[in-house]
Amino acid sequence: MKCKRCRRAEAAVDLPSHHAAFCPDCFFLFFRRQVTEGIRKLRLLAPGDRVLVCVSGGKDSLVLWDVLMDEGYETEGLFIDLGIDGYSDRSKEKVLAYAASRGKTPIVVELAKEGIPIPEAARCVRMQECSVCGTVKRYFFNRVAAEGKFTVVATGHNLDDETARLLGNLLHWQRGHLARQHPLLPGEEGGLVRKVKPLWRVSEVETAAYGFLKGIDYVTEECPMSEDATSLVYKEALSRIEDRMPGTRIVFYQGFLDPSNPLRKGPEAAPIPEEAPMADALRVTDVEAEGDTGTPRACAACGAPTYTETCSFCRLKERIRKARSMRTARGSR
Amino acid sequence: MKCKRCRRAEAAVDLPSHHAAFCPDCFFLFFRRQVTEGIRKLRLLAPGDRVLVCVSGGKDSLVLWDVLMDEGYETEGLFIDLGIDGYSDRSKEKVLAYAASRGKTPIVVELAKEGIPIPEAARCVRMQECSVCGTVKRYFFNRVAAEGKFTVVATGHNLDDETARLLGNLLHWQRGHLARQHPLLPGEEGGLVRKVKPLWRVSEVETAAYGFLKGIDYVTEECPMSEDATSLVYKEALSRIEDRMPGTRIVFYQGFLDPSNPLRKGPEAAPIPEEAPMADALRVTDVEAEGDTGTPRACAACGAPTYTETCSFCRLKERIRKARSMRTARGSR
Repeated sequence: MKCKRCRRAEAAVDLPSHHAAFCPDCFFLFFRRQVTEGIRKLRLLAPGDRVLVCVSGGKDSLVLWDVLMDEGYETEGLFIDLGIDGYSDRSKEKVLAYAASRGKTPIVVELAKEGIPIPEAARCVRMQECSVCGTVKRYFFNRVAAEGKFTVVATGHNLDDETARLLGNLLHWQRGHLARQHPLLPGEEGGLVRKVKPLWRVSEVETAAYGFLKGIDYVTEECPMSEDATSLVYKEALSRIEDRMPGTRIVFYQGFLDPSNPLRKGPEAAPIPEEAPMADALRVTDVEAEGDTGTPRACAACGAPTYTETCSFCRLKERIRKARSMRTARGSR
Repeated sequence: MKCKRCRRAEAAVDLPSHHAAFCPDCFFLFFRRQVTEGIRKLRLLAPGDRVLVCVSGGKDSLVLWDVLMDEGYETEGLFIDLGIDGYSDRSKEKVLAYAASRGKTPIVVELAKEGIPIPEAARCVRMQECSVCGTVKRYFFNRVAAEGKFTVVATGHNLDDETARLLGNLLHWQRGHLARQHPLLPGEEGGLVRKVKPLWRVSEVETAAYGFLKGIDYVTEECPMSEDATSLVYKEALSRIEDRMPGTRIVFYQGFLDPSNPLRKGPEAAPIPEEAPMADALRVTDVEAEGDTGTPRACAACGAPTYTETCSFCRLKERIRKARSMRTARGSR
């Protein structure tokens, strides 16, 4: 089959949801246009932005970084080493190799050095790993952004991620979460940085094809902690629908984002989703949790923005400290 | 495993969504309580009601009739013979046999005799069979109810049907359909009878188990015309989620029905979904289509309630008549 755009080269990527098939070069154009259109439509980024791109080593975030650099944005990469045996090392390796190939050195935060490697932290506080991970990531997104004078943080969530999250929120009618789910979370005075998801219009398959054809080497394994994540169940269910009815995902998400949708407030009106009470955080598996409303103040312990006395990151650290000292006390008895 | 209720008999039905397993007798109690609770909560039926139960020969409608009779409602069955080769005969046989076992004779409408057997009608007007079938059924529900002085029409839609429909409406943000989807569609002056779905709280599996254990003999084959129906795709997707997270379906549907849900008006406020423009009817696969608003008037051709000059049933018949006469004209040339 010939490419639907140039009609010369052999098509390499079949896109039933767009009734199209492209050769690699035309697909690159198509993909980048999808991303830039997604940025333009929702005004995710402005020309003067300094963008902190959160890179996990997976395809989505590396492809995001790649496209943003190619589009001329000023970017730096942030890699958070979660301290997950083997997986974190392999991920870091891919991030460093990719960054080096583009003449970059990513900012690296090592959770083991910070005293909160995810597996041990989750065990200590008896929480789902994904919840702990979300709390910790949100904290470092804001902290690194503030330290490095970044104006915005970008994550690699794609259309499949966003629609899986939307489906989960709808199945349980999580009205607060629905009101705030959006590819743009505006920043706020006091250290809450703006967060954007520029890949919201492109699917997982499209992102994987882009990474593969561009020769970007990424970790293909899923995080071993997220194996049972409910979002995977929703993603699979939507995949089956998409296979039978191509284009359903983008119609679903764009219809949801429509400003007339009574389930959503506009991003302007939405309270900043940031600091979630721990109990609430247990129910979300994405990097944002739903938060309290009002204006953030400084955490009494660390000065980070929070809606409570101390921020959830400090409360998490405190719980881990207590759990460790109890264990030590038991051990020395 | 012992029954969770009587703790004596062997459990025969496992219900993970209710964290329960019941012996046949306790399951009958449970199932009937689910149905009566569904009727009570949404005030679907009142003691003096004369209920026209639409029976297709499948498990859902026969089980519905069975439960309503056992609960003491005054009921008659309506069987619409769709004129589908083989399938309609086998369905009719099951309906007549079940009715006879309860000392009843169902009202039978034969679409072939009415000049609109579904397969030919759909071919003539080049519409999906399910759309034509919906239009025709709606017409006869109202007509037979009026002729027989029934106060309400009951259909066998279960929780799986309703949630599949809801998912489809959400995936495409069919706001009009979402506003009006409800197990109770109030009647209206001018011949639009009230319609209710008393099985909205019970799943397909539960209904099948009830029918099987009660020894009700029903057609197990799907309607051969509905093989490609999109609702089956949504149903399958939800089944996979339900398997992994039992109880999701009922949470999904009850959350949707919550009066505070901004996507729904209360059934009082909802315009009567009845007469749908043909183009609209193409998109729905259920017995109700979404309709125009306002007060219904009498169809200029047949006197049936409608929001347009002639009702969609008469327009359908007119299109079939034209298609047939064109075919005859071609044949005689």
